Amino acid sequence: MMQWKVNPHLKNLQKDVLYHFGLDTTMDLQKMFGDVQVVCMMGSPVRAENFARITAKSLFLDSSVEAIGKTERFSLYKTGPIISVSHGMGMPSILIMLHEITKLLHYAGCENTEYIRIGTSGGVGVKLGTVVISEEALNANLEPWYEEVVLGQMQRTPTQFDQRLVDALLKSAGDIPVVTGKTMSVDDFYEQQGRLDGALIPSFGHVEQEEYVRMLYQSGVRNIEMETSAMAAFCHRAGIRATAVCATVVERFYGDQVECSPEELDLFSRRAQNVVVKYLTFLLPFTVAVALAACSPTSQQSTIPPEQQPQTVEKNARIIQVTSENWKFSPNVIMVKKGEKVQLQVTGVSGTHGFTVPGLGINVPVAPGQTVMIDVPTDDVGAHNLFCSIPCGSGHKDMKGQIVIEE
Amino acid sequence: MMQWKVNPHLKNLQKDVLYHFGLDTTMDLQKMFGDVQVVCMMGSPVRAENFARITAKSLFLDSSVEAIGKTERFSLYKTGPIISVSHGMGMPSILIMLHEITKLLHYAGCENTEYIRIGTSGGVGVKLGTVVISEEALNANLEPWYEEVVLGQMQRTPTQFDQRLVDALLKSAGDIPVVTGKTMSVDDFYEQQGRLDGALIPSFGHVEQEEYVRMLYQSGVRNIEMETSAMAAFCHRAGIRATAVCATVVERFYGDQVECSPEELDLFSRRAQNVVVKYLTFLLPFTVAVALAACSPTSQQSTIPPEQQPQTVEKNARIIQVTSENWKFSPNVIMVKKGEKVQLQVTGVSGTHGFTVPGLGINVPVAPGQTVMIDVPTDDVGAHNLFCSIPCGSGHKDMKGQIVIEE
Repeated sequence: MMQWKVNPHLKNLQKDVLYHFGLDTTMDLQKMFGDVQVVCMMGSPVRAENFARITAKSLFLDSSVEAIGKTERFSLYKTGPIISVSHGMGMPSILIMLHEITKLLHYAGCENTEYIRIGTSGGVGVKLGTVVISEEALNANLEPWYEEVVLGQMQRTPTQFDQRLVDALLKSAGDIPVVTGKTMSVDDFYEQQGRLDGALIPSFGHVEQEEYVRMLYQSGVRNIEMETSAMAAFCHRAGIRATAVCATVVERFYGDQVECSPEELDLFSRRAQNVVVKYLTFLLPFTVAVALAACSPTSQQSTIPPEQQPQTVEKNARIIQVTSENWKFSPNVIMVKKGEKVQLQVTGVSGTHGFTVPGLGINVPVAPGQTVMIDVPTDDVGAHNLFCSIPCGSGHKDMKGQIVIEE
Repeated sequence: MMQWKVNPHLKNLQKDVLYHFGLDTTMDLQKMFGDVQVVCMMGSPVRAENFARITAKSLFLDSSVEAIGKTERFSLYKTGPIISVSHGMGMPSILIMLHEITKLLHYAGCENTEYIRIGTSGGVGVKLGTVVISEEALNANLEPWYEEVVLGQMQRTPTQFDQRLVDALLKSAGDIPVVTGKTMSVDDFYEQQGRLDGALIPSFGHVEQEEYVRMLYQSGVRNIEMETSAMAAFCHRAGIRATAVCATVVERFYGDQVECSPEELDLFSRRAQNVVVKYLTFLLPFTVAVALAACSPTSQQSTIPPEQQPQTVEKNARIIQVTSENWKFSPNVIMVKKGEKVQLQVTGVSGTHGFTVPGLGINVPVAPGQTVMIDVPTDDVGAHNLFCSIPCGSGHKDMKGQIVIEE
């Protein structure tokens, strides 16, 4: 199972104070956060709370939404396996949050979590209200890396996002107006974004501004905001699957000011949220069903909706037998060849578990006593993470593995 | 009267939406903010509200403290002529706030306002809990300027603060442990501050960390935080008198983590606030008295405390006669020679006004019918701003002038 690349010095800390969250390692972080699968982050605490309410309503029954830890700096909510958290404005602010949430999840033992930023942005050549899913972030020099000075040394980190996550979000979006593209992240809302309506005397005029926005469009930039480049770099270094999903609330070809009505602003923000909620519904489809059936890990009741019935055995395919039980998949490392025709025959022994490999589009629930056939697409060489997508009890986080596709 | 250097494009805007404050120019900003004299800014909304309560209690009678505008991004409070506002974490965040508060005060017609950041920081070679007043900010490369990329061009702005304001704050501090020095501002709480307790694998170890902190001390750095360099650059460009007053809540020679108890943290934060409150009490000493006496601008009642009785005429001094009335000082530009012995004989005609020249340490109230003698120190060549420090009615903001000391 691939682990995050986490600071080895943390092992030497007697106690780690996650200062800006008001949490620390004397608390039972594993119990509090051990089942987290996706972290959704957004600028303002109001939006983080709203998003927690939306996910609670859309995905889970228990809709109590209460902030965890102190809320002076960031506001942190947890609904089922989803964290909703605010990150403030700008890359330094989101970096503080990323360091601390990542340490928190590391201590909680859930290093298979995805990070999605949900935000607003200035659009570049896209219709107002379009949602941009970032494939790559660029810095203010339009370079695909994040620069920072560490102890006097310049450090550069690439800022590409996880293309599979981008594709999955795009696929989930349905009829929401959405594009994929590059996001430029800068350290200022006014001059660095080429705005002429800041407080200070700008070093450029309307002509340079227009030329600049046109040049951004030609470079593949579809939106401008203030956090994504640092987030991409952080996730790149840690090995975290991530992307950013931002609604455009101003079209920079036509103006500087955010002149949307509050209703439009709300509508556009919700679009970005809805893209992510739809994706979560795909990723975690059976949480609701499991909760409804109030299954214990040993329940024998099948909770699988009719449209998700198991596939049948296919001719000429290699069949690999897998068991699903409390709390492991066996085998949990499955080796296949590129182009090989493969089916998994997964048999439920105990507990209802979600046999999930997001990188291969696999997400199938398996109840005890049930056998399901799963086609494995084998075009994509590499190691694809396997895990259980249904919170199934104390060993949930141990249900990990990989499907490895070799050349 | 010296004006701020403000973006000339603002004149062309039909309406300016101060998006992150939820305020705009269709509101009567002059009425709402026309008497502001000092903006105190701090990271968290909780601290901004607390500080508003403290200033309300220390300086004014009307202690109602309510946030103005929307509070999703920043929290803005006004108590008498003092604004207390949150700026979030990091330079991009404080820059957004600075652009919008400066436009707001520009529209409100009060361009003689001072900006003071009140914060917490990591101390470098100073006793835990010491308050550092910043004379100059350095960037992560220890350079005395702020760098930003604007439309693809690197732009550098000096980051020196107003030495007179620094000196005035230092003088006000009394027995609070305080030092002046350089502040290093970086874009990250962890690695860029040489901390080894972030989430990611650092590119350095304990030896480099210790060497780095020692080198910072030798460079004159007394504290590290995340906002001051951008603030200094912004204020430099706009021509705003400013500095930062930050308590140290961790001593970086001895560790990375903030391990203060909540009580200590509170005590240290309050020290920084108290330095500023003491300064405000000096700057605006008669607001309380005026409010107590409920003077109208035409009131004849003297509100001057006994210890502030007018000075007597001095031998050999040149006497310059000045009148103080609703709403002007006449003359309002006073020319003197360096080293010359000068006294102002200020006579109150109408309204009680504060004859205030912070650069020369002058702050004397003048009631109608009263004549006060004011010694003018004439060592400091340059133009020193004169204004009224007592909110005295609709023409208050017009009571401006200069004392010019020539070689």
